[in-house]
Amino acid sequence: MATPPSLSIAVLLFPDHQNLDAVGTMDYLNSHSQAYLANFPTVQHLVPKAPILTWYFVSDTLDPITATSGPKQLPTHTYATCPPVDCILVPGIDPFLPLSEGCTEFLKKDPKVILLTVCTGSLVIAQTGVLDGHNVASNKWALKLMVDAGKLNKAVHWVGDARWVRDGRVWSAAGVTAGIDLAAEFARSYFDLEVVEFVKVISEEVVNPDRPDPYAYVLEGVDLGAGK
Amino acid sequence: MATPPSLSIAVLLFPDHQNLDAVGTMDYLNSHSQAYLANFPTVQHLVPKAPILTWYFVSDTLDPITATSGPKQLPTHTYATCPPVDCILVPGIDPFLPLSEGCTEFLKKDPKVILLTVCTGSLVIAQTGVLDGHNVASNKWALKLMVDAGKLNKAVHWVGDARWVRDGRVWSAAGVTAGIDLAAEFARSYFDLEVVEFVKVISEEVVNPDRPDPYAYVLEGVDLGAGK
Repeated sequence: MATPPSLSIAVLLFPDHQNLDAVGTMDYLNSHSQAYLANFPTVQHLVPKAPILTWYFVSDTLDPITATSGPKQLPTHTYATCPPVDCILVPGIDPFLPLSEGCTEFLKKDPKVILLTVCTGSLVIAQTGVLDGHNVASNKWALKLMVDAGKLNKAVHWVGDARWVRDGRVWSAAGVTAGIDLAAEFARSYFDLEVVEFVKVISEEVVNPDRPDPYAYVLEGVDLGAGK
Repeated sequence: MATPPSLSIAVLLFPDHQNLDAVGTMDYLNSHSQAYLANFPTVQHLVPKAPILTWYFVSDTLDPITATSGPKQLPTHTYATCPPVDCILVPGIDPFLPLSEGCTEFLKKDPKVILLTVCTGSLVIAQTGVLDGHNVASNKWALKLMVDAGKLNKAVHWVGDARWVRDGRVWSAAGVTAGIDLAAEFARSYFDLEVVEFVKVISEEVVNPDRPDPYAYVLEGVDLGAGK
């Protein structure tokens, strides 16, 4: 990746997706971008060190979609028309819902793309096999629900005691608000640390580590298969 | 307020508003609603205890707006057409920008409306006088910038050492991510506590208290006027 990195990121706009899953992660990452920092006259020295982020908003069609809350949102691309990207950000929906064929193909097209999942986003895309063999976090309450229903894909190594997990190209957060902590870790890994520190201050983010995870108790005694 | 409470909330969709300011607060509150919890078959006993939340998305016109990140969003009402509401949620924009006349009138129309501000939202609406005499939090980095520029409305009692503040009808959060903690405190104050606890678990929210505020240092030695 170039320094400063240039990243294109597709945000999957599922109907009824959890709005904060997408926006917590997306907006926190975006606050590190050159385009965002250009609006702050007193820190112009940070702009050349900041990443260039290009966002695409992708859905099955270009029809307006509604998330769990908020106004209707307009996709910019369909799964068929979205250009190749470096990263895909997957917010959560009801994990029992099937993925569309277009979305499945989009997720499987490039085996090197960086996947960022938040909350049940990982449970949903686990249907496609793209997470098989990876250590992955998810919403703990939903993980338990999937185990109870006998619907969990146990080829994924589900991690029940972490707020976020990175395993190769797969970056996964636990429930909803953990997506911001995932974004903070992603930023620490890829972006200039002076930029990262400034964004933490202006966002007044209280960064949570991956462990200890205060919600690990939800999965105590639950059989996640190969997970740990 | 009835039990379970029924609340109508207008979210101000300023062009270029910080997306996470609005969505952190809005989506976290919305996860307590009857409409949201109705999607969780195993906790149907919580639905009758949950609040009924009605959301309006309000801007100067009905033209699509873009926030700091994310796709275009479609307002449902203009300031002129929005029905009376119980609460107004104000995300942050550049605090040096003037508010439109329509927005100013909307904010001043009902002196009993509950105001929720996040980040620079409080600095922006302080122009109208609606916060005068109240204890109010804001983005600390931006507060310092306003002081340095001699532009701070010192009729407001700015609070420099709290992550969020409630003073009567005014609920204010400090920078961006503090809006989720403000929503959590609002929920604890108005909603059924069993519902509040469930939402905390499914959102895996690590709730931050108002004090000690890890970013209070940003305003040490800065003259906020009557604030504390």
